[in-house]
Amino acid sequence: MSAQIIDGKKIASEIKSELKPRIEALTQKGATPFLTAVLVGNDPASEQYVRMKAKACSRIGIKSKVINMPENTPEDELLELVGELNNDTEVHGILVQLPLPEHIDQLKINLAMRTDKDVDGFHPVNLGRLMLGKPLFSPATPLGILELLNRSGNNPGGKHTVVLGRGDLVGRPFSVLASLKEINANSTVTICHSGTKNIGDYIKQADILICAMGRPEMITGEMLKPGVVIIDAGTSAVDDPSAKKGYRIAGDVHFESAKEVAGFITPVPGGVGPMTIAMLLSNTVDAAERLAENHDGS
Amino acid sequence: MSAQIIDGKKIASEIKSELKPRIEALTQKGATPFLTAVLVGNDPASEQYVRMKAKACSRIGIKSKVINMPENTPEDELLELVGELNNDTEVHGILVQLPLPEHIDQLKINLAMRTDKDVDGFHPVNLGRLMLGKPLFSPATPLGILELLNRSGNNPGGKHTVVLGRGDLVGRPFSVLASLKEINANSTVTICHSGTKNIGDYIKQADILICAMGRPEMITGEMLKPGVVIIDAGTSAVDDPSAKKGYRIAGDVHFESAKEVAGFITPVPGGVGPMTIAMLLSNTVDAAERLAENHDGS
Repeated sequence: MSAQIIDGKKIASEIKSELKPRIEALTQKGATPFLTAVLVGNDPASEQYVRMKAKACSRIGIKSKVINMPENTPEDELLELVGELNNDTEVHGILVQLPLPEHIDQLKINLAMRTDKDVDGFHPVNLGRLMLGKPLFSPATPLGILELLNRSGNNPGGKHTVVLGRGDLVGRPFSVLASLKEINANSTVTICHSGTKNIGDYIKQADILICAMGRPEMITGEMLKPGVVIIDAGTSAVDDPSAKKGYRIAGDVHFESAKEVAGFITPVPGGVGPMTIAMLLSNTVDAAERLAENHDGS
Repeated sequence: MSAQIIDGKKIASEIKSELKPRIEALTQKGATPFLTAVLVGNDPASEQYVRMKAKACSRIGIKSKVINMPENTPEDELLELVGELNNDTEVHGILVQLPLPEHIDQLKINLAMRTDKDVDGFHPVNLGRLMLGKPLFSPATPLGILELLNRSGNNPGGKHTVVLGRGDLVGRPFSVLASLKEINANSTVTICHSGTKNIGDYIKQADILICAMGRPEMITGEMLKPGVVIIDAGTSAVDDPSAKKGYRIAGDVHFESAKEVAGFITPVPGGVGPMTIAMLLSNTVDAAERLAENHDGS
């Protein structure tokens, strides 16, 4: 038996197609969705992510701008910029690319952002609203994982979803999102992490397994329950002399052995990655629609 | 075998004793902790809760005030009051007793509160900070449950904690709190709810079982793993002709049968209830200390 592949590129592209008429409607009203990304420093991975996001915007008609600030930008200056973007009526979505340099307090930056422009969903108000089941914006990667499940016919309702990893970006918010009393969620969720003992016992029970640890290929086929649905959000660079760059990107799951046992599985790359960008675009369109509506109403 | 009883009254009283020197120190600085409770309407249970909280304050030297507003108070008026309390430099903690009448949007009220006076921990910023592992105030009942575990020698680290119920007040925030990477937490947590299938399978696995469903005496001894630690946060009124009032307060656990299987168990009443008040007092003292410190520093 071989698992069905959940094609993240294809699902992301469906989502982007669905956004297009909404973007056109906004553009006709003179309110083209506008995402501004702020990049502090020159981390090559961050630069690449921001470039990919900007490119994805332009492809579907979302305006975008990238503001580069030097690595040694004082926290105050970044706060000031966030304040300006908050007040800029043309800007609908603000994204401050993570990680920030160590001298900048990420929580403080997130707290300074207008919650209705926080398309990354990292403002504590937006995380708190998620906990209350009244989300405004949810973080893009967890949202993308939920879409991958539902659009591949694997609604998590009533299933046992085991989340590996309690990080702020994926594991923790997904564990909350997946257990909300919503038609696309409503799952029984177990969250495992570095403090979990006998993690194999939980993995073996999973109907749905969400991997967000960043431990390359730790999960192998014999650890799984037959038919499990695997979403692999891990991305680690591992040495590979046969690859052009000398490394390749690996997920948390050993794909070859896992696909012989699982019912569904995402590839890495081509699984969660494209969904993160698609959901960021979706959040930006949501933001633009809400802000346009409020503007109409005022 | 009979379970050890976790005595919530005794542990709450230890916590209150520990608060006293801190309250005295604040009083000597002229900054006696001051809690203001707002009660909208005349719900008898709410009235009783607020009375109990005020009484508990006065017993350990915390100043308190109860502001009563009629059931038909417009939302705007309540928002205005919250604004006044935010600005009142004498007030350290604000508590708006729940539930609010239906015409008032609870989320809006919580969002209007200063996060550093939100001693109930219901402001989305405080819930979001909890998710990020950087809590300022956490909700009192989940905090109290964590104290019951740790102070009875049942640190949840590495254990499998099964939480029954995903409500905003207990189940949901406790599931996050218990799985944080903190020395008093660090538990593997499964959250079960009305959408869970085969709930018995999860209950049977629990090393620690947190009951927050409000279904009287649903959990019986034969459902449990021997030695499980049970914290029962359920409170339901059930008919009881032999009781003076014609009813008694029951937890989610059938105490008599459960105590023959469990290793530890909280009674209802006298378990979680007293802890909720103790942790509210603790949050109020935290608030007063932080506000006094900021005042000193400015």
